[in-house]
Amino acid sequence: MAQESFAERFDPAVAEGFLKANERLTGLPRYLGVRIVDVGPGTLAAEMEVEPELLTPFGNIHGGVLSALCDHVLGCVCYPLMKRGQWAATTEFKINLLAPVSRGTIRAEATVASLSRTLAVVRIEIQNEGRLAGLAQGTVTIRDPKPS
Amino acid sequence: MAQESFAERFDPAVAEGFLKANERLTGLPRYLGVRIVDVGPGTLAAEMEVEPELLTPFGNIHGGVLSALCDHVLGCVCYPLMKRGQWAATTEFKINLLAPVSRGTIRAEATVASLSRTLAVVRIEIQNEGRLAGLAQGTVTIRDPKPS
Amino acid sequence: MAQESFAERFDPAVAEGFLKANERLTGLPRYLGVRIVDVGPGTLAAEMEVEPELLTPFGNIHGGVLSALCDHVLGCVCYPLMKRGQWAATTEFKINLLAPVSRGTIRAEATVASLSRTLAVVRIEIQNEGRLAGLAQGTVTIRDPKPS
Amino acid sequence: MAQESFAERFDPAVAEGFLKANERLTGLPRYLGVRIVDVGPGTLAAEMEVEPELLTPFGNIHGGVLSALCDHVLGCVCYPLMKRGQWAATTEFKINLLAPVSRGTIRAEATVASLSRTLAVVRIEIQNEGRLAGLAQGTVTIRDPKPS
Repeated sequence: MAQESFAERFDPAVAEGFLKANERLTGLPRYLGVRIVDVGPGTLAAEMEVEPELLTPFGNIHGGVLSALCDHVLGCVCYPLMKRGQWAATTEFKINLLAPVSRGTIRAEATVASLSRTLAVVRIEIQNEGRLAGLAQGTVTIRDPKPS
Repeated sequence: MAQESFAERFDPAVAEGFLKANERLTGLPRYLGVRIVDVGPGTLAAEMEVEPELLTPFGNIHGGVLSALCDHVLGCVCYPLMKRGQWAATTEFKINLLAPVSRGTIRAEATVASLSRTLAVVRIEIQNEGRLAGLAQGTVTIRDPKPS
Repeated sequence: MAQESFAERFDPAVAEGFLKANERLTGLPRYLGVRIVDVGPGTLAAEMEVEPELLTPFGNIHGGVLSALCDHVLGCVCYPLMKRGQWAATTEFKINLLAPVSRGTIRAEATVASLSRTLAVVRIEIQNEGRLAGLAQGTVTIRDPKPS
Repeated sequence: MAQESFAERFDPAVAEGFLKANERLTGLPRYLGVRIVDVGPGTLAAEMEVEPELLTPFGNIHGGVLSALCDHVLGCVCYPLMKRGQWAATTEFKINLLAPVSRGTIRAEATVASLSRTLAVVRIEIQNEGRLAGLAQGTVTIRDPKPS
């Protein structure tokens, strides 16, 4: 999909809302300390710190942390391109874990590769300490608001 | 792979260790409240409760919870089939989220479908409230202990 | 999804049509010699022979053969559960290749794991010479006929 | 992985061999008419024409064609980075099909994202008629030659 069309659809107020919401996260994103740090038309970056709490007894971060981070940005990146009231549900994704992560900051960058009326396909790159730590690709279903 | 060969390789002491370790979980599995409830030759089941803390503002569980649970059982199911000292690293997995989850118990059942010297392929079914909530398939790399 | 509901939706005439169509395949399925051999409510099995033509210079079947076979059964298994006129498009799938294939018959069994109004999730097992040669999981989009 | 290290490992003679081999393809790549058109350090592009033979009765190319093309470039892109005598086996891949393909040229571009001693992770983009038709991500196992 051409980047122009993403720019046309892009709702900066929604993007701004994500950045402001970092202060009032709940649940899993809060536990992980995920901060959305950059939102553009079809792109979104989030960061989190590798707190000792998140390491397994082997000294590396639990793979579930990276997959949860992935799932989080997968959905979020779609919202600024959607109509108000619509919602995004992860249909599926696939992740490759490429390197052990044991310290520093984790950064996940999501990019919308394809967007139709009901489906978005998103790619994600996860960086840590200057190297690629994960790669993912997933599908998001975009649903219209339920009639009330 | 024939189930017989899993039975031959199966180390009940490792399986027993998983069941006992539920009391002293750390990190993400502890946050999620994951309990390993059944371990057999090439099979493992884990359960967790849908605590209100884990719901998104939309009232459903965060997809990251299910993917993290998946990643957890994906690795764990391999250990009782491995040699002592070896460790299992998630290489990749793919998950389909099939139904929103908002209450009750989540149960993930992992089954080893294929096992070679260095790779295991595992399938996972996630059940909630009597229906299928997720399906996953992934690859685990089995590594020998690092020479000390 | 309960098997009963698959049984209710199952259209035996469509299933029968698949079995009869083996004689007039075209394109890639014809090149591969894929025969649909069994169709039930939410299940479909297809077989093909490992002809020498399909082997790579290394003496094993090209991985593309197994992935193409997967894609084929992934869509076909949905049709007998769909309304007449609807069509099924592969949205995505993931395949693990588990063992080299160099002779004999390849059998792919597809099972619908989940079916909504617009999406089906399907799992596939590929057998060859008494062992598991591949495992796949994919998503099919079900579309209504275009208004004419 | 840094591109420099790919450049160091890159074996131009192997790359050249791929370009020359287009004249003597066999099996599935020959049936599909796949031509490898560009090979660099960690990158490979292949093209094929949408011949009428490859269309399904619905007028679109069979999804199996794109997945087979994927599998083909997934392995090939690794060879110029491997030691002579090693071979690459597709362990798994995941593909999203993004748009129907019914005419023109299909171009698949593979890029190695990560390379260890035994595993490579590769991403693939498939273009057709100026738009993105498919996206894939997969894992290749690199094996040493069998001792003779």
